[in-house]
Amino acid sequence: MTPWTQRYAERTRRMTSSAIRELLKLTAQPNIISFAGGLPAPELFPIEEFKAAADTVLSEMGPQALQYSITEGYPPLREMIVRHMARYGIVVNIDNVLITSGSQQALDLIGKILINRGENILVEEPTYLGALQAFSMYGAQYVSVPIDENGLQVGRLESALRAGVKFMYILPNFQNPAGVTLSLERRHDLIEMADRYGIPIIEDDPYGQLRFEGEHIKPLVVLDAECRACENDGKYSGNVIYLSTFSKTLAPGLRLGWIVAPKDVIHHLVQAKQGTDLHTSSFDQMVAYEVARGGFIDRHVKHIREVYHRRRDVMLAALERAFPDPTLGVHWTRPEGGLFLWVILPEWMDSAELLKEAIKDRVAFVPGAAFFPNGGGHNTMRLNFSNAREEMIEEGIARLGRAVERMARVQPEAV
Amino acid sequence: MTPWTQRYAERTRRMTSSAIRELLKLTAQPNIISFAGGLPAPELFPIEEFKAAADTVLSEMGPQALQYSITEGYPPLREMIVRHMARYGIVVNIDNVLITSGSQQALDLIGKILINRGENILVEEPTYLGALQAFSMYGAQYVSVPIDENGLQVGRLESALRAGVKFMYILPNFQNPAGVTLSLERRHDLIEMADRYGIPIIEDDPYGQLRFEGEHIKPLVVLDAECRACENDGKYSGNVIYLSTFSKTLAPGLRLGWIVAPKDVIHHLVQAKQGTDLHTSSFDQMVAYEVARGGFIDRHVKHIREVYHRRRDVMLAALERAFPDPTLGVHWTRPEGGLFLWVILPEWMDSAELLKEAIKDRVAFVPGAAFFPNGGGHNTMRLNFSNAREEMIEEGIARLGRAVERMARVQPEAV
Repeated sequence: MTPWTQRYAERTRRMTSSAIRELLKLTAQPNIISFAGGLPAPELFPIEEFKAAADTVLSEMGPQALQYSITEGYPPLREMIVRHMARYGIVVNIDNVLITSGSQQALDLIGKILINRGENILVEEPTYLGALQAFSMYGAQYVSVPIDENGLQVGRLESALRAGVKFMYILPNFQNPAGVTLSLERRHDLIEMADRYGIPIIEDDPYGQLRFEGEHIKPLVVLDAECRACENDGKYSGNVIYLSTFSKTLAPGLRLGWIVAPKDVIHHLVQAKQGTDLHTSSFDQMVAYEVARGGFIDRHVKHIREVYHRRRDVMLAALERAFPDPTLGVHWTRPEGGLFLWVILPEWMDSAELLKEAIKDRVAFVPGAAFFPNGGGHNTMRLNFSNAREEMIEEGIARLGRAVERMARVQPEAV
Repeated sequence: MTPWTQRYAERTRRMTSSAIRELLKLTAQPNIISFAGGLPAPELFPIEEFKAAADTVLSEMGPQALQYSITEGYPPLREMIVRHMARYGIVVNIDNVLITSGSQQALDLIGKILINRGENILVEEPTYLGALQAFSMYGAQYVSVPIDENGLQVGRLESALRAGVKFMYILPNFQNPAGVTLSLERRHDLIEMADRYGIPIIEDDPYGQLRFEGEHIKPLVVLDAECRACENDGKYSGNVIYLSTFSKTLAPGLRLGWIVAPKDVIHHLVQAKQGTDLHTSSFDQMVAYEVARGGFIDRHVKHIREVYHRRRDVMLAALERAFPDPTLGVHWTRPEGGLFLWVILPEWMDSAELLKEAIKDRVAFVPGAAFFPNGGGHNTMRLNFSNAREEMIEEGIARLGRAVERMARVQPEAV
């Protein structure tokens, strides 16, 4: 009946599957212990602070908070981000900062101004599914380089770069989905190689502030400025575009992220954002600024780190108990921060099949294959440890262990 | 220094100019009486109601308001939109409604799923600049058909449709920029022609509720359902996608709009939105619902209509006083609703030149050429009457009259 279907059929075939969406639906089922989402712990949301902030903003700046505003974002919030970046050693000013409607919009805008249909983007394997969704809408193809426990295998990068890529999309800290962190040595190598081949980097850092243990490693954007071989003289060279978000430190429901980039790049991103949604909610930007200011966000992030640290420990201990037999061949990463942990199952086991089995036991996770743009990863899965309380993590992992055992019993190859 | 510039140079050349943005900057200058923006009257924003609503939402549903939510939008808000549409005679359910980050995002998502580079979109001439910006990023070309005081000149449509267009983008009520309304007769003709040529319509209706005088005219989406020649049997056929927004009835700062479309179209728009910003602010959606519910929005819109009605009358009267001489050849539209009025200057006068002259007198407007995708309109301008108080409108139009007089004195052709 409708004349639309045939019109968008071609376009939508080129889009990625609605995997995240279908999976989020699972997590909403009652009585399911879900490790599937990427949700922050809602019981940590600073609700009272948000109430006070909303009241202050509307009482003191109501007309401004409810009116159209500039595309670049609320200046005091951008000033705050400039100060935050300076702590990391990233010296920029307000003209280098664009507020986005979550980090997801940052990925969309980058795709919009940079990707021409059919061009190659270099990504980690596995990588963030939402980035693949954003870039694929602009017709991106992917060159993927595997990760290990120290992040992207930079030694395997050169042949990929020789093949020609538009940019590299890298999650250096507590990567989504695998939870691994790119080592300092590899970061140096990556920066030098990017400079040598003239390939820019998108550094996506939503979890950088959520380090529980180990030492802070300098962001790529800082190492790029410091790179002697790159002849930047310690200045922001602009070969790295840095993305981050308030979704993991304040609240994701407000959809507030940001991009740090050279002024000319920001200029083009602003033009693209103007045609996309004019600007991010004035009210949300002002409320978030009011909540975050005066040191609150630092105290709050410290508290989030403590809670997630304990939950990670509980999940690691539960995994040890659930999979005590090393001959079964179940391995997992040990993230030093962030929200996710990655499990590698025996080669013969399909995690999509395991999910069906696990759902019977009312426990859910994300099968890893969705994070591999060029296929593979059938025997992997992502577990989120930020959203469930400790006793739920223990119970959920125990259920997962039983589901794996059941699958092992019926698989002749496992004998 | 940066490797980005050459990469996006080609793309950004294809983008439309940043005309809106540059013009909004003008309106922010001190002591300027601006008729340039499209801003609602901030003194009418229901700030106390927003304060109470934010408090209620955070007190009663805080974790939900601050957490990630579904891409489709907050169900009670969508239910409210379903009830609102039913009053207009548009019978749909919640699955036909997608909440967007303002109407601007609706335009972006429609461009994203429908437009292939180089395809023709049929637009009114002049038309909404933001739509041109959104569609142009996907490489749209434009076939434009002139409007007159009864809206799109439907009689001139057929040859344009024969040339082949992907869809028609139409603003039937109090059109931006010209303030004109498409007559009922032309709406019938348009719907039948769209059916005959199999060309869908995007009906953009941000101002439909702001009618000051005259009778409500049925939306295209309703006439399409009723069209006997189209064999729809009074059902929602889906040949018209309807867009609207809370920006003009509650507050634009929250960026809340919506799309009504067939379920399969919504499905694809949801996929596109997921990759674009995951979802619109949970907090803003819940606060807007809380403000709007229980009949408040109807009482509030009635008040807005009264104020804008008076401002329009003041502007029309001021224009009569400023341009009493009919031989000068200055004409203007008489909108029955909305935010804008359209002025046609003598053929020899360039409104961009006039703007420079007007700025000297501290008054601003939008030169009309920006609203013509294929050139023309150099002697036209858009005046906004919603944002300035009555005495400012009188003063501003008087200044504009003096600026036009000065230009007429130096133009030999005007003698």
